[in-house]
Amino acid sequence: MAVSSATIAAVVKAVREDRLWQRHMDLARIGATGRGGVNRQALTPEDVEARLRVLAWATTRGFSASVDAIGNVFIRRPGRYPTASPVVAGSHLDTQPTGGNFDGVYGVLAAFEVLEAASDAEVTTDRPLEAVVWTNEEGARFQPTTMGSAVFAGALPLETALATTDAAGVSVAHALAETMQRLAIPQQRAFRFPMAAYLEAHIEQGPLLETTQHTIGIVSSIQGLRWFRVEVTGEEAHAGTTPRRIRKDAFVAAVRMVTALQELLYDTADTVRFTVGRFEVTPNTPNTVPGRVLFTIDLRHPQAAVLARLGDQIEALCRAQAQDCSVVVTETLSSPPVEFDPAIRDCFTQAAARQALAHMDIVSGATHDAKYMATLYPSGMVFVPCRGGISHNEAEYAAPADLAAGTRILAEVMLTLAHS
Amino acid sequence: MAVSSATIAAVVKAVREDRLWQRHMDLARIGATGRGGVNRQALTPEDVEARLRVLAWATTRGFSASVDAIGNVFIRRPGRYPTASPVVAGSHLDTQPTGGNFDGVYGVLAAFEVLEAASDAEVTTDRPLEAVVWTNEEGARFQPTTMGSAVFAGALPLETALATTDAAGVSVAHALAETMQRLAIPQQRAFRFPMAAYLEAHIEQGPLLETTQHTIGIVSSIQGLRWFRVEVTGEEAHAGTTPRRIRKDAFVAAVRMVTALQELLYDTADTVRFTVGRFEVTPNTPNTVPGRVLFTIDLRHPQAAVLARLGDQIEALCRAQAQDCSVVVTETLSSPPVEFDPAIRDCFTQAAARQALAHMDIVSGATHDAKYMATLYPSGMVFVPCRGGISHNEAEYAAPADLAAGTRILAEVMLTLAHS
Repeated sequence: MAVSSATIAAVVKAVREDRLWQRHMDLARIGATGRGGVNRQALTPEDVEARLRVLAWATTRGFSASVDAIGNVFIRRPGRYPTASPVVAGSHLDTQPTGGNFDGVYGVLAAFEVLEAASDAEVTTDRPLEAVVWTNEEGARFQPTTMGSAVFAGALPLETALATTDAAGVSVAHALAETMQRLAIPQQRAFRFPMAAYLEAHIEQGPLLETTQHTIGIVSSIQGLRWFRVEVTGEEAHAGTTPRRIRKDAFVAAVRMVTALQELLYDTADTVRFTVGRFEVTPNTPNTVPGRVLFTIDLRHPQAAVLARLGDQIEALCRAQAQDCSVVVTETLSSPPVEFDPAIRDCFTQAAARQALAHMDIVSGATHDAKYMATLYPSGMVFVPCRGGISHNEAEYAAPADLAAGTRILAEVMLTLAHS
Repeated sequence: MAVSSATIAAVVKAVREDRLWQRHMDLARIGATGRGGVNRQALTPEDVEARLRVLAWATTRGFSASVDAIGNVFIRRPGRYPTASPVVAGSHLDTQPTGGNFDGVYGVLAAFEVLEAASDAEVTTDRPLEAVVWTNEEGARFQPTTMGSAVFAGALPLETALATTDAAGVSVAHALAETMQRLAIPQQRAFRFPMAAYLEAHIEQGPLLETTQHTIGIVSSIQGLRWFRVEVTGEEAHAGTTPRRIRKDAFVAAVRMVTALQELLYDTADTVRFTVGRFEVTPNTPNTVPGRVLFTIDLRHPQAAVLARLGDQIEALCRAQAQDCSVVVTETLSSPPVEFDPAIRDCFTQAAARQALAHMDIVSGATHDAKYMATLYPSGMVFVPCRGGISHNEAEYAAPADLAAGTRILAEVMLTLAHS
């Protein structure tokens, strides 16, 4: 049964820019670094506190909550038909160590704002509406990234995720048990429960919307991603006495590998995304030749064939540069490019047109939890601009009006799908 | 007054290889890593425990102890003339994070063995004999290296040393106060007190003695050393969304600098020692473009002019490679090459000849506390072989017979100088 355009308009109108912004500012205080950003890594006390804050807001509005075995939290506003599969939207509350106040948070708060707007407009939807908080999207403390949605979707075994440890040796199992105890949500949710659709609002994390003056980006696809862990082993030696010729310097070998990778992955079109973000030297003291280096490779491309061809050359290239050192290359994550559901994209496009917002199709450079949902349900994403394209940075900023505009688009699409 | 050759021979004969080795093995347990080496960094509880062990041995033998304001410990066997300046020998007990069982320890234990051998032989020397334990020779936890002897010699202000902090933010002042409290040595010693001579026995930490089959290396000089700290600042950004062209990747800039430094400092003779031993990336997470890199440069050369010429080019070279990042280069240590006293070297050569030990002159690639003593007193060093030239490594090894041979040379020279 189709929903009336008046009903949709009432909910869209009930979206409150001031409330949405205030909620962002409230969460920005949890794990605040004092330099404008936040350090709220997955399953830390700060992450728990942010979730508890959202749960408190949910309680105030009379929404219910449930949690699955990897800690993904679902906040539900019931619909007319209790057994109908819900329309779910959300994102994550965890951040990078020096993260911003919008990455992830926006997707959760936009979804929550839609639930609140529906209540304020006193609208009863056919299907339930849900806002989800995925666990450990960032992959900063525990690798891999998008852990919660990957486990939910069955792409990562729960046992593997639970056994993962952080740099201090703390396991996900341990940190999750503490989190679960503090959240104290009695209602359990099964992995892969049926959803009518999954939607995610997010800041773009790139410069395109801002530079082309579009308020709304309708995400056509997410580029593919491959992560590698490279461990180089040489031999520790005294920096003052050991001639260059007999050194087995793991740092020098790693620098050779990085330089060769830069050459391999250079494209004049600047489409390939290649990052060495983590690089650790052992023993890391000025006067000892390094015996060991661990570094990571983050490689992304929108085309599956290019990503496969480039990624498949990495191990051989590192081996060729190892010389007197040894090297072990492990692929820790492989995620092919994802295309979003054309019907959902259409729905977003129609909403943006109806609301007279400048919109464009866009490829997501970042990975998102929606990637795994797209393997299970009709899924889609909507982007709003972020200043200077800056993200994963404490200077990350999105304008209140843009955040609200994206939420109104999300509201229209959620309402439409909740009656289909 | 010359000492009789019979007296010297009696002390040399009293040097006990088994006792010397056992003492090395006793200290190797303090901070043992379980992989054959030790982690006994300066002013840690392990460092304190090693010093307390040596002090306990001293007490058993009736030797007295004193300590100066930077924690250098002096163990004294009195001579016939209490006001005569002592002959001092020693080294250090602190190690690299993955250090061996002989670097430094040998110099302390060889000196202590000479004091014990003199007692066992019931010889009374004219001058007092002293064994010294210098504080923080390695510079692993607190920079710079050879901190204790530098402060003693007046080359580094005490206040500067005390204000230095480790990676966890603990200051030398704090760690030293704890050390002093636990050592509880009442007798205070002044910096730069008069010494008749300073001697230091050490493992070579290079391959030369072993490959040329010499037991004794008589050190002619220590190569010069310059340390630099390079801080590169870029801008954190999302690894998936930020095009290469607009990145300010501090890691990429640092790798460019290192590569350019390798070209600048390459010499076919392999005399230049260039090491990047510490390299730290911030925020060090796989999917964030690094915003900051800190790395160290350890540069050494036996010739002062070459060291000056090469080191003076480093800052400009790093600036030239910074591109969109900024860079600050700070020279944290500069130590010119040091020549040892010809008379002391002669004394070592004569002792080696008299004891019929294969000996050669050698340049020290590593820096040592003797470097600072050479600016104040007649000073010299003796090296013994270490297997494969391996040092600053848990596999470091020196043969008991070689350690004893070096100690017998040290005994002869200390005894000779104690009567001059």
